[in-house]
Amino acid sequence: MSRRDTRAAIVDAAVAILGRDGAEGLSASALAREVGISKATLFHHFSSIDEIPLVAFERMVARGLEVDIPARAGLGEIMAALGAGNFALVDARRDFLRAYFVFVARAMFDPALAALVRRSGDALLARMRTLLRPHVGTDAEAAALARLAALTLDGLAVHLMAFDDRAEIEAAWRLFATLVGDQRRQA
Amino acid sequence: MSRRDTRAAIVDAAVAILGRDGAEGLSASALAREVGISKATLFHHFSSIDEIPLVAFERMVARGLEVDIPARAGLGEIMAALGAGNFALVDARRDFLRAYFVFVARAMFDPALAALVRRSGDALLARMRTLLRPHVGTDAEAAALARLAALTLDGLAVHLMAFDDRAEIEAAWRLFATLVGDQRRQA
Repeated sequence: MSRRDTRAAIVDAAVAILGRDGAEGLSASALAREVGISKATLFHHFSSIDEIPLVAFERMVARGLEVDIPARAGLGEIMAALGAGNFALVDARRDFLRAYFVFVARAMFDPALAALVRRSGDALLARMRTLLRPHVGTDAEAAALARLAALTLDGLAVHLMAFDDRAEIEAAWRLFATLVGDQRRQA
Repeated sequence: MSRRDTRAAIVDAAVAILGRDGAEGLSASALAREVGISKATLFHHFSSIDEIPLVAFERMVARGLEVDIPARAGLGEIMAALGAGNFALVDARRDFLRAYFVFVARAMFDPALAALVRRSGDALLARMRTLLRPHVGTDAEAAALARLAALTLDGLAVHLMAFDDRAEIEAAWRLFATLVGDQRRQA
């Protein structure tokens, strides 16, 4: 593997381990075994084991933002598309979402992780505000709606991971998209 | 302390430790030290250390449901009151909410905890449906709105714990209460 491929493989392995075994499973030995490299090679790519979940988390957030929003979509359709992205992620990459929440839970006890979660969250909120701004009257409205969408998407992911009631959760998300879409048409 | 007081003190100590030190901090030694009892006394009250966070979680969910909803409140006011309960909890008992999320994160890797989270969540959803049913047309609408409220409240708590932007999060919650309230008046 090239230097860059090895680095990417280590980060992917960290996501896989966090998603499968939780935070306790993530050690240098487990990572080296998962990738099929020596610990020496591992520490050639990352100076500290703590650095790896940080890089993994940034990649997770970047992937979480890869949602196709149709051009000319209204607010309700944007919300529906964002929700559909979460449903697809749970279906295709349950390990990945688990790793994300393991990471957020660990960040509550680790200031360096907390700063990273905040930075990644702020980047996501900024993109969301840009997406929503043309549909509302003021910057403040765009900020409030972006925050509401972001926190509701996080809640959606928690419920998809913790409960089996997929149909009811989908109905709740359709209701949310309708509420957001209708309110604008009314205004 | 009476037998019952000691049991309650052990459960409170488990919440305190989970909230302060995370899941790794919860051991029989740490619990006995926190309460000021011997490990023998601890195991006199609980047959296994694993049982304690289960009881603690049920108590947390029960407390989380203690929100005053004004009689005759409309849907928007109910949502505002539920959100206010979360804001107050973050202010008064940050450790408690941290313990809650540590628990939910652990449950993703532990089927017994996962079953308990689901059971507690189902109890909360049932109460929410009862609260909302008089304000909507059908049982299905009540179920979707109860689910939406529950997952949005979870997302609200995550954002309050992970971000500093209290004012923006409050604006998002006011927007949510308005959207839910307006939609009904429209219908």
